Amino acid sequence: MVRLRDVAERAGVSVSTVSNVVNGRTQTVNADILRRVQDAIADLGYQPNRAARFLKTGHTPLIGLLVPSVATPTWGLLAREVEIAAQSQFGYRILVGNTDRDPEKEMSFLLDLWSHGIRGVIIVSPLLQQSHFRDSIKRGLVAVCHDQRPLPGSPLNADYVSIDHIRAITLAVNHLIGRGHRRLAFATASGKSVSRSDKIEGFLAATKAAGLAEASEIIEGKATTNYGDDEMLQLGRIIAEQIVEKKERPTGVVALNDMLATGLILGFQNFGLRVPDDISVVGMDDLPIAAFIPPGITSVRPPMSEMARKMVARIVHRLSHPEEKVDKYIFAPELVVRGSVADLASSGQSA
Amino acid sequence: MVRLRDVAERAGVSVSTVSNVVNGRTQTVNADILRRVQDAIADLGYQPNRAARFLKTGHTPLIGLLVPSVATPTWGLLAREVEIAAQSQFGYRILVGNTDRDPEKEMSFLLDLWSHGIRGVIIVSPLLQQSHFRDSIKRGLVAVCHDQRPLPGSPLNADYVSIDHIRAITLAVNHLIGRGHRRLAFATASGKSVSRSDKIEGFLAATKAAGLAEASEIIEGKATTNYGDDEMLQLGRIIAEQIVEKKERPTGVVALNDMLATGLILGFQNFGLRVPDDISVVGMDDLPIAAFIPPGITSVRPPMSEMARKMVARIVHRLSHPEEKVDKYIFAPELVVRGSVADLASSGQSA
Repeated sequence: MVRLRDVAERAGVSVSTVSNVVNGRTQTVNADILRRVQDAIADLGYQPNRAARFLKTGHTPLIGLLVPSVATPTWGLLAREVEIAAQSQFGYRILVGNTDRDPEKEMSFLLDLWSHGIRGVIIVSPLLQQSHFRDSIKRGLVAVCHDQRPLPGSPLNADYVSIDHIRAITLAVNHLIGRGHRRLAFATASGKSVSRSDKIEGFLAATKAAGLAEASEIIEGKATTNYGDDEMLQLGRIIAEQIVEKKERPTGVVALNDMLATGLILGFQNFGLRVPDDISVVGMDDLPIAAFIPPGITSVRPPMSEMARKMVARIVHRLSHPEEKVDKYIFAPELVVRGSVADLASSGQSA
Repeated sequence: MVRLRDVAERAGVSVSTVSNVVNGRTQTVNADILRRVQDAIADLGYQPNRAARFLKTGHTPLIGLLVPSVATPTWGLLAREVEIAAQSQFGYRILVGNTDRDPEKEMSFLLDLWSHGIRGVIIVSPLLQQSHFRDSIKRGLVAVCHDQRPLPGSPLNADYVSIDHIRAITLAVNHLIGRGHRRLAFATASGKSVSRSDKIEGFLAATKAAGLAEASEIIEGKATTNYGDDEMLQLGRIIAEQIVEKKERPTGVVALNDMLATGLILGFQNFGLRVPDDISVVGMDDLPIAAFIPPGITSVRPPMSEMARKMVARIVHRLSHPEEKVDKYIFAPELVVRGSVADLASSGQSA
């Protein structure tokens, strides 16, 4: 059997360098040496043995990522950030599961993680209260819930990593108010999740604090394609139509996310309303497309890379420190100002 | 140790049903029974053992997916389709690696697959000629190259699954010609790949066949953010500016893909050019966003699900049949007509 030291000898490097390479910690290894080690591995037919590592540590250096769909722009970005964080910090890889917010598919994915020796998972799901998550964690899965906060009374024994959704929508609402908007709407999807409820709560609180509760409203839309990847674009278009038909139209709309904001802006265009001249829009998530949809969507940005690093670090730490208590980590979002909000204050159109 | 039959007894089902569940073949199991089996597994603390399966078969039921970035819409969709195909046909899961078209990251991912006992990989890369792919396949990795055809002279010992890129661009060009366009352009990214070269070749052949070679041109743009997820949007905007500044402007532009087409259309808008009134655009890939960017982007659709099923099926088959010869599978794309192409023929503006 070929051993690590045989590879090291052949490549003319130290055993620890070979160990770094075979465990994926290639960031610290220069390109030339990496190639020599990889050539030596290929020449000698060395097979690094994760199965052995699994038997020794009880887990394999993989992290599960459970998302509704990796084809949804937000979760595609998350998957990328999580992999970068897992690779650069710990040499871990990620196993992605698309679960369509279907509890059966979620259960099946959790079970598969277990059977592959994967003991850490990042969860994006509105179904955290269902028993499959609780059961899996009870069996020993180390979980981090993304974009959620623990619910009072029955939190999972998991870390929670999220932006402060109330702060996020408050930034958006106050930006509109600061620019003289007095009639506001929050455009969201029907169906509740903690993050959506927080945003609704934050919207109501921020408009009330400004004395605009009467003139503000929540507009919920229901897309016909359920959980499809174009759901939010479609929803934006549907809500745009609802807004256009209103007698008293809001001057500023906060959208649940940037895809919904994109659908709104394109929908308004269809009806001859220009953004921001006729109506203003603020998005959330700061997706790449936000900068490109004219006139540039003003959006609220979560610190995605930082959050990804925190989630991965928590999992890896807790895998080797089972006594570690779970915690919650709430990150502050920031406003990215682009062109989609008109300044009514300076043009004298306010109030 | 808890055995499969203990779980079956507890759940009141057959051993083969339990086996289906623990191997991820849950499509054939009804929801009620699935839950009973999963409860029994949780109650008894049964641990299905992939490590044992790995020792028996020499591979684990996972497939690697190597993509430049899963946050790029096309590859996010591919990741989703591949997982659906792998799950529904064989109960396999997928390990995603983002490699930024960086040969070191590609090498490192291939090595990690090997060390995790993963013997099958789907590759999306313009660097197929580099030695790391050839070496990995020589060691025993079963590979399928997506969106590429084998290069004459030195094809990899891998399956190739692709649409017919020449046919794809011919559909786009002939649609424009059929609607009376006589001055055409192909908007693409600088930097060659087989699929881009095929598209250029197809564009030149189709315009030449119509006697329009003189009036047609390839316009290459270079984005400043290399391989970033907004690269194609930015590129479209840059090329739109190049086109606007031309003395003799094309009336119809075929874009390398729908994100580039989106960037083009939004860029044209910036300069006051309306699509399709002032200039027509055809995209490729038929991404979800194509239907939403006004006036709806006419695009060329690859049969993504079929292609994903073929790629997964080839890998699983060849894993258990090492004597099977590699092959190439070229799929036919189809044109999806929306609103982004003006009919110059009927309005008498042609020629």
